[in-house]
Amino acid sequence: MTKFDKSIDKKLVSAGHSTLQRRFYEIRNNKVFELFVIAIIIFSALMIGAHSYQISATAMSILSILDIAITVIFLTEIIIRFIGEPDKKRFFHNFWNIFDTFIVLVSLIPVEDSEIAYLGRLVRIFRVLRMVSIIPELRILINSLVKALPQLGYVMLLMFIIFYIYAAVGTTFFAGINPELWGDISISLLTLFRVMTFEDWTDVMYESMTVYPLSWIYYLTFIFFTAFAFLNMVIGIVVNVLEQERQIEADLNNNEAQQPTMQELQLQIAEIKTLLMQQQKNR
Amino acid sequence: MTKFDKSIDKKLVSAGHSTLQRRFYEIRNNKVFELFVIAIIIFSALMIGAHSYQISATAMSILSILDIAITVIFLTEIIIRFIGEPDKKRFFHNFWNIFDTFIVLVSLIPVEDSEIAYLGRLVRIFRVLRMVSIIPELRILINSLVKALPQLGYVMLLMFIIFYIYAAVGTTFFAGINPELWGDISISLLTLFRVMTFEDWTDVMYESMTVYPLSWIYYLTFIFFTAFAFLNMVIGIVVNVLEQERQIEADLNNNEAQQPTMQELQLQIAEIKTLLMQQQKNR
Amino acid sequence: MTKFDKSIDKKLVSAGHSTLQRRFYEIRNNKVFELFVIAIIIFSALMIGAHSYQISATAMSILSILDIAITVIFLTEIIIRFIGEPDKKRFFHNFWNIFDTFIVLVSLIPVEDSEIAYLGRLVRIFRVLRMVSIIPELRILINSLVKALPQLGYVMLLMFIIFYIYAAVGTTFFAGINPELWGDISISLLTLFRVMTFEDWTDVMYESMTVYPLSWIYYLTFIFFTAFAFLNMVIGIVVNVLEQERQIEADLNNNEAQQPTMQELQLQIAEIKTLLMQQQKNR
Amino acid sequence: MTKFDKSIDKKLVSAGHSTLQRRFYEIRNNKVFELFVIAIIIFSALMIGAHSYQISATAMSILSILDIAITVIFLTEIIIRFIGEPDKKRFFHNFWNIFDTFIVLVSLIPVEDSEIAYLGRLVRIFRVLRMVSIIPELRILINSLVKALPQLGYVMLLMFIIFYIYAAVGTTFFAGINPELWGDISISLLTLFRVMTFEDWTDVMYESMTVYPLSWIYYLTFIFFTAFAFLNMVIGIVVNVLEQERQIEADLNNNEAQQPTMQELQLQIAEIKTLLMQQQKNR
Repeated sequence: MTKFDKSIDKKLVSAGHSTLQRRFYEIRNNKVFELFVIAIIIFSALMIGAHSYQISATAMSILSILDIAITVIFLTEIIIRFIGEPDKKRFFHNFWNIFDTFIVLVSLIPVEDSEIAYLGRLVRIFRVLRMVSIIPELRILINSLVKALPQLGYVMLLMFIIFYIYAAVGTTFFAGINPELWGDISISLLTLFRVMTFEDWTDVMYESMTVYPLSWIYYLTFIFFTAFAFLNMVIGIVVNVLEQERQIEADLNNNEAQQPTMQELQLQIAEIKTLLMQQQKNR
Repeated sequence: MTKFDKSIDKKLVSAGHSTLQRRFYEIRNNKVFELFVIAIIIFSALMIGAHSYQISATAMSILSILDIAITVIFLTEIIIRFIGEPDKKRFFHNFWNIFDTFIVLVSLIPVEDSEIAYLGRLVRIFRVLRMVSIIPELRILINSLVKALPQLGYVMLLMFIIFYIYAAVGTTFFAGINPELWGDISISLLTLFRVMTFEDWTDVMYESMTVYPLSWIYYLTFIFFTAFAFLNMVIGIVVNVLEQERQIEADLNNNEAQQPTMQELQLQIAEIKTLLMQQQKNR
Repeated sequence: MTKFDKSIDKKLVSAGHSTLQRRFYEIRNNKVFELFVIAIIIFSALMIGAHSYQISATAMSILSILDIAITVIFLTEIIIRFIGEPDKKRFFHNFWNIFDTFIVLVSLIPVEDSEIAYLGRLVRIFRVLRMVSIIPELRILINSLVKALPQLGYVMLLMFIIFYIYAAVGTTFFAGINPELWGDISISLLTLFRVMTFEDWTDVMYESMTVYPLSWIYYLTFIFFTAFAFLNMVIGIVVNVLEQERQIEADLNNNEAQQPTMQELQLQIAEIKTLLMQQQKNR
Repeated sequence: MTKFDKSIDKKLVSAGHSTLQRRFYEIRNNKVFELFVIAIIIFSALMIGAHSYQISATAMSILSILDIAITVIFLTEIIIRFIGEPDKKRFFHNFWNIFDTFIVLVSLIPVEDSEIAYLGRLVRIFRVLRMVSIIPELRILINSLVKALPQLGYVMLLMFIIFYIYAAVGTTFFAGINPELWGDISISLLTLFRVMTFEDWTDVMYESMTVYPLSWIYYLTFIFFTAFAFLNMVIGIVVNVLEQERQIEADLNNNEAQQPTMQELQLQIAEIKTLLMQQQKNR
């Protein structure tokens, strides 16, 4: 229970809230309740996996009963969390609460119809992502990934420009050689992504070299540009992350230890000097 | 609008320049104008992509009219930027301005002739690079890539020496086994680049091992040398970039915060001591 | 011989231990003894390798005699180390001692029976790991790897969640296209691991694109997610390791050099000021 | 010309050395002479490349004459450098001088005999390495690579132990399935290296999975162990290089700027305090 939770706890008591909400609030913060939910999520994930194996009709019906049970448990859990939340508005400000509610609500739609059964099963797959909303360490990881995204944005744009130019050039020259690889610009983009991952890229190159013997320049420059840009992307992120971590840590240290700065020391020494000068004069 | 632009702005007013130039200068620095140019570049890129699909004669003629429109817009934009530039010399000192002008001027050459139609289309592809000259963040990225180039130069040279020696040895021994892979030194260099990217390198190795059973030593040492050199290249760049960033940041901090150095403090303390000594004596 | 060993050495002398234990203790810390054991381990490793070649019956019987000899030497070595250990309890607190004892004890079980001969030979293979328990530098390496494991734990979990969701989606859609690659969820997980290593991933993709032309989105997003997560994993570990190293080094420097902190300096300067103020008043 | 060279220069003059040696010494340090030698090395490298193409008998004889010319030039250069060296002993203390002399001396051996013609040509290939001994930046690169070697040593040993154990296990189980990949321990080591580079590793895995369905555990754990060890190797080197660079830079800064330490400041402040205390008492 965090400091913040405790203060809310007191508020609940002093404000004389309903005992139901207090009990639900306690359940929400209970470690055993959390572990139970994690267990249900894992079980639900395993069930999705079980569907992929050839199973008997009996097992199938057991699975569908279990599925209803899991949906009910998830629904109950969300309701407990919602009632247990002292500030109802805050509940929907949290992205993960909205995500959880959405997943549970969509699971409620009956999907006996074979045509949209696929969709129903797909939604059930995303229940596994509830692991992220339950385990704080995973939430931190996802947050750090999201924070790195804007940094990656412009590098991605530059990479895409390089890809686009090479795709346009590739389509212009190689479309006649192998339309399956260079037929139009979107196919060419996919082929270039394949070349970047070094996946049978020599087959692609040797084929175009039969018509244009110098086309190896095209492939080698492309690999250098994309690999070089990628390298700089990695370095850029490492440098930025290191700088930010250091800045945050340094600021924390200064605030906690209340270390005086060089400037403060200089000020104090200057004051002493003034005092001594005055003594000199007064004499 | 940057500080520098503002000072130029004042100069324009005080010098009583023609209202036409002032208006063009304002257009040049307008955000909406910038976004419009970016939109035109993206549209022009999509048009190049559209060319790669099988399209009807009507669509084709529409595309060629649009192409003329884009060329006119780009030409107008360059002229606006040139007239809007207070210092005409500075305009051509900027690499990106020269690049933009070149791309636009080449687009003006009529390319109805089917023989050089390819060339015309190729030039149009490089219009996408105008994205880099318009978006400042991409220009920064490119500049940092260019800055890292001299650092990479000597590593590249060393890598090439390793490649060349291995290619010469490979040609000497394996040319008789598979001339398509080891026929002459340039083919061998290409084959070695393929081995470095791990692209079906075992097929190449197993083939030569049928004649020279110990040739695995050749391939494994090559992979170790190139991978090891590449590793050190990455580390070298990371270390250098980190050092430079830290240096620049540290210098900025010292100038901004005007933090006194240890030496300055020592000087002041020494002065106090002298004062006290004098008091001692005077007594 | 470390400082710690020397103190134990003195203890042995002062406590008047048996001369046998003292002699064994000396043997244990002898450099020649260590090199002899390393030589035996290497020889034992070579013998395991020799088994994999087609060898005559005579050589086979020589090998089995040598194997018995090695087992006896290893047993003797463990006994020497155990008797040589002044504190018997400490012997079994060391993971590597338990590991060594286990390997030697299992080697003692006679494995002439062809059915479990495989098991016997497998245990003999793990004798090579005794290199790690003998050479301190390798032990340090393994320890640092083990320390990094908890940091990797949550990243691995996140990666597994991504893999699991993609495997479930893949099985749902692609099982009908190629059951050998997407038959059930465990096969799909293996296929996705293959895609992550870029091993013929385009073959897998092109096959599913014949039925679902948009399935390239599935593969490209998967590659981005796993590559991006992996990238952050590497960066995260680098940052953490760097921070820890710096922290340890900084703490060591402060303790060794006994450098005064800024706060201590401020305190002293404040004291001087108070003294001067008092002088002012007293006048 | 470095500071050191200048001092030697003076020594030469004062000691009244032979004018021949002085002139040769001047030639040795001449930039034009260096560029000429580099040009000859590049020309010699191109000639080796030319040999790999099908060339006429005339061209062949021209090449062999040019080869003699290059050998003579190289011999002359070494002799100039040797005579130009003021301290003859120092000449052979330099690894690169010995290397250069060796390459030139071996080139002198006539290799008209077709049987050892291969050897002669191979030695000529290594002339390209003379680039490293001539260009200082490349020498620095090689030195830094050599310095990183001991750090890599133990990681390589650990990697080899992992490889050896997996190779022994692989041979035991998979030799019967495909002797070409797992026939004996050395073949298995090569196959495992191939698996580590992800080169068609799934082909290897799927084959063994037909007999041992659980053998994917063997491949996946191997990939994790080797990739993980490699990762830590990279990080370890980065950390070490960063630390060393920082240490060297920090030491240089302290020596150059002669910044006082915190301890020195504390001492001075303490002295002031003592002075004030004395004043207090004297009153």
